[in-house]
Amino acid sequence: MANAPRAVRKLTELRSEVALWRKAGERVALVPTMGALHEGHLSLVRLAHTRADRVVASIFVNPAQFAPTEDFDKYPRTWESDLAALASVSCDLVWAPTKAEMYPDGFATRVAPAGAAEGLETQFRPHFFGGVATVVCKLFLQCQPDVAIFGEKDYQQLQVITQMVRDLDIPVEVIGAPTVREADGLAMSSRNAYLSAAERATAVLISQTIREVAGKVGKGEDGAAATAAGIRALTAAGYRVDYLEVCGAADLKPIAGTVHGPARVLVAAWLGKTRLIDNVAVEEAGR
Amino acid sequence: MANAPRAVRKLTELRSEVALWRKAGERVALVPTMGALHEGHLSLVRLAHTRADRVVASIFVNPAQFAPTEDFDKYPRTWESDLAALASVSCDLVWAPTKAEMYPDGFATRVAPAGAAEGLETQFRPHFFGGVATVVCKLFLQCQPDVAIFGEKDYQQLQVITQMVRDLDIPVEVIGAPTVREADGLAMSSRNAYLSAAERATAVLISQTIREVAGKVGKGEDGAAATAAGIRALTAAGYRVDYLEVCGAADLKPIAGTVHGPARVLVAAWLGKTRLIDNVAVEEAGR
Repeated sequence: MANAPRAVRKLTELRSEVALWRKAGERVALVPTMGALHEGHLSLVRLAHTRADRVVASIFVNPAQFAPTEDFDKYPRTWESDLAALASVSCDLVWAPTKAEMYPDGFATRVAPAGAAEGLETQFRPHFFGGVATVVCKLFLQCQPDVAIFGEKDYQQLQVITQMVRDLDIPVEVIGAPTVREADGLAMSSRNAYLSAAERATAVLISQTIREVAGKVGKGEDGAAATAAGIRALTAAGYRVDYLEVCGAADLKPIAGTVHGPARVLVAAWLGKTRLIDNVAVEEAGR
Repeated sequence: MANAPRAVRKLTELRSEVALWRKAGERVALVPTMGALHEGHLSLVRLAHTRADRVVASIFVNPAQFAPTEDFDKYPRTWESDLAALASVSCDLVWAPTKAEMYPDGFATRVAPAGAAEGLETQFRPHFFGGVATVVCKLFLQCQPDVAIFGEKDYQQLQVITQMVRDLDIPVEVIGAPTVREADGLAMSSRNAYLSAAERATAVLISQTIREVAGKVGKGEDGAAATAAGIRALTAAGYRVDYLEVCGAADLKPIAGTVHGPARVLVAAWLGKTRLIDNVAVEEAGR
């Protein structure tokens, strides 16, 4: 088995390690995670290796992006198996700051995203992207990578971060990586661990439904009609749907009628006490 | 006369110039300004030369830090004399982005400061430090200097930027430079150009008053009593006082009673249509 990558908890340690690589002329990639790693995360590390000489994975369960009612406390923490998984994909360094290192006493500055952060998740998790943008901005400035890899699974997050990087001129290239799915199509997620066996069986419907919606609107069907049918199907199967929308692929503005140009179908829905999200590109027929 | 420094308006030009210096192992300093340069700004460039091999001055009148009622349109713009002044202090490069380069269509992300940004200026210019923090964050990430110099004249701004850099882990050292004053003690400011001759004569009172307050509280006098006397003196001379406060030197929290530890006296007051600010350290007697 491969050796576990070195894990550092102090910013000074991270910076001195990265500085050595820079001095040697090496390119650095960052893969931000909250741990509880699965095959989706590992695919990001593999992609990172194709874009840089060194790959840093960060593991930090960011309290600032959880509401008090959300699952911060029960979010899965699997440090030993995360390290083993990162070793298996030759990750060079694990950046695992403590909460006190990330948010020392007196911490007060926030990054407030807008544009792509409006609508969708923000309707249901109003403080979520503020917490994400702030911590990702910090991670970028702590590590100063040439490139950073995020999964398309969290598609709105990817667009929010892309916009933040552009707006604030953060010198990093943000790359989205395709969602990794289970054999039945369920998008891999650390939160899938919350699903009961019965819920897991039903969970296949979420990716099926968005693929159906994407297929319909790709053939020119009205977006509102297609999403309404999708919401009906999910609700009938026992889901509580937060949203199911067709949006512009970059600005994430809702598209009500016929799709023209790049678009995405995005969904968030509850299965029992577990909230699942997923999304898929609209492939336009006849293009 | 020294040659005018090269002035660039595109981020790609700034970055390629700075990259050449970095490749040669040179340290880079940034002096952010809004132009209308005076001796105070030039002192910042001179200080910058002692801390870096190359000095970039930015000139950008930032619309995001002016309220609609404020003086954005009439803020003095003196490009030719600014370039000549920067040549006289051997500035290496002028970063003068257009508004469209700084805030392209779709720009939406903001940096929201807190902590040092609370109170004082924020009571009267509630959006000011949001605009300042956002543009200074961008300037830092555009130029990526090793060190950045700001005048203590804008003391709360200096603390807000210091806190932002610490909170967001921006890899730059922020240095405050002493306020440069006219012979009679008036702090140099681009806005002094707005003063009539009669106002200019009265303007001496503002620095006199804060030095008196600082002297009193330094000797152990109650801060509230000393500032009340100062406000009475300024008001009697025709000023409209926004604030005159004794605050902690780093956190800028108001100090009502006796001063213990580093403290600062800060004032903002109107003389006719011109708003002047100034501040001075409290030198504690018997320390």
